[in-house]
Amino acid sequence: MKKNKFEPKITTIGGGTGLSVLLRGLKKYTPDLTAIVSVTDDGGSSGKLRKELGVLPPGDIRNCLVALSEEENLMAKLFQYRFSSAGSLSGHSFGNLFLTAMSALTGSFDEGIAQTSKVLAIRGKVLPATLSSVILKAKLSDGKVVKGESKITKSYSRVKHLKMFPASPPAAPEVINAVNSCDGIVIGPGSLYTSLITNLLVEGMVPALKTAKKPKIYVCNIMTQPNETKNYKLSDHLAAFKKHIGENIFSYIIINVGSIPKMVAKRYERKRQFPVRIDIKDYPGTKIIREDLVSHQEYVRHDPDKLSKIIMKILKDNKK
Amino acid sequence: MKKNKFEPKITTIGGGTGLSVLLRGLKKYTPDLTAIVSVTDDGGSSGKLRKELGVLPPGDIRNCLVALSEEENLMAKLFQYRFSSAGSLSGHSFGNLFLTAMSALTGSFDEGIAQTSKVLAIRGKVLPATLSSVILKAKLSDGKVVKGESKITKSYSRVKHLKMFPASPPAAPEVINAVNSCDGIVIGPGSLYTSLITNLLVEGMVPALKTAKKPKIYVCNIMTQPNETKNYKLSDHLAAFKKHIGENIFSYIIINVGSIPKMVAKRYERKRQFPVRIDIKDYPGTKIIREDLVSHQEYVRHDPDKLSKIIMKILKDNKK
Repeated sequence: MKKNKFEPKITTIGGGTGLSVLLRGLKKYTPDLTAIVSVTDDGGSSGKLRKELGVLPPGDIRNCLVALSEEENLMAKLFQYRFSSAGSLSGHSFGNLFLTAMSALTGSFDEGIAQTSKVLAIRGKVLPATLSSVILKAKLSDGKVVKGESKITKSYSRVKHLKMFPASPPAAPEVINAVNSCDGIVIGPGSLYTSLITNLLVEGMVPALKTAKKPKIYVCNIMTQPNETKNYKLSDHLAAFKKHIGENIFSYIIINVGSIPKMVAKRYERKRQFPVRIDIKDYPGTKIIREDLVSHQEYVRHDPDKLSKIIMKILKDNKK
Repeated sequence: MKKNKFEPKITTIGGGTGLSVLLRGLKKYTPDLTAIVSVTDDGGSSGKLRKELGVLPPGDIRNCLVALSEEENLMAKLFQYRFSSAGSLSGHSFGNLFLTAMSALTGSFDEGIAQTSKVLAIRGKVLPATLSSVILKAKLSDGKVVKGESKITKSYSRVKHLKMFPASPPAAPEVINAVNSCDGIVIGPGSLYTSLITNLLVEGMVPALKTAKKPKIYVCNIMTQPNETKNYKLSDHLAAFKKHIGENIFSYIIINVGSIPKMVAKRYERKRQFPVRIDIKDYPGTKIIREDLVSHQEYVRHDPDKLSKIIMKILKDNKK
């Protein structure tokens, strides 16, 4: 490690694939990463574990640990590994066994996760946004009220307003501190409501974001989602934040202006997903950064390295 | 990490508690550690796994991984953790489950161990001396020939000569290279025959040690062992090496001159263990370093920090 290397303390807020992509890129530039992860997932395997064992949904947390690891491929394989022998543990992935062991050793799931970076070769740490068992409640554009993250993401209606039940659950230890004492905060990419705004609903998060003096960077999704952000333009994304926070807090917005390969775009169209339309040129108090950020792969994702380079440049410029 | 910090590449050779103590100390001074570990253990849980699963005895390897970890206490607890639920995996420690998963993922036990430092937060790496399934064969001072490490350590006779069966098993990948390309080699502390000399019996090890130009440091045990080194003086330890190597290879010998607390000494006496008597003042071609190295705890062990400081000083002096 070179002396005087610029390795800023970055706090990221999100969940899902978007957050993994971001962490995968940022870990190459700084070891001082804190990922605040949404824990409102109630579908799939995470939802099952949540129901059966009463633990926080570990899916996104596990994915973040993998994304932060020094050898991501190997860690991913290890976390997915299942023992072939019969027995009660054989159905579980090694990743879940690992988190279970860490929880048992440290006395709680969150402490287990917090201590994880001490035993695994990962750059940074992962914090669940809250330790409370909460569910999301969304008022949709068609007037319906839907409960539970998996139902929200499955409904084919835009979200109008998101709430947590019970409301304002306490933030997990260190979460608010991670927002207050870093060199920059990155929100997104990720599902606007169920991965990003959900994190803002924990107690103390909005005031902390409002008062934080360091760059607050929003990375807008490249594509809309068929449900919660159906046909959303950039202005709609920003309006959603404003609605839930009360004011615009972003000092930077990073948007993609690169084009999606036709074949890929067609596939997304069939799922009613389109590139987020950039319908505004300026946003008061905020610098909009336009870049080609598309990773040329099977899925439309941000290119981890291109995205990280822009974030690092912003933080470096703000350090001066 | 400071620039220009002296962080030498050190290769240690040994096994058992002695090697763990050494690694625990050295990891604070350098991240570039390679531990070559004896794999002839055939007793206890390691022996059982060896017999049942045909894998190398993982006990010493696991202990070394723990000793090298950034958070030793937590890693030790994690590796010892056993899942309480019923099922075929519930009898095994998390450490063994981890090594099993790594072996399965990488295709072999040694590759699994070699890759371990990429997923766990440990400073350095652990290499089994050989991947072959070998057993030790000792000619004892009473004329008897004993087979198997556990029988050798249990017999109340001194070892006269140690052999491996089959003889000269191939060294594991990277082992010889670790001896050739480091800034210093440390042999011991540890059971003279069953942890130290056993490592010298793998193919290519003795020639590599003979030709290595960097400091070769022998850390003599503080206490004799009731069997393999019964009443051994320093000269007996050195003679044993000479017998198995053919010549003296050590550039430094580190011996303890600190005294053992009476209460502790009494307890050891009952097990017929006594401080190694320092019966020689000089040893041609070798510098003997005399220090108080006793760790003041329940057992007579080397103080990891005192020992490491001396080793680091030797390597620094030789760097000039």
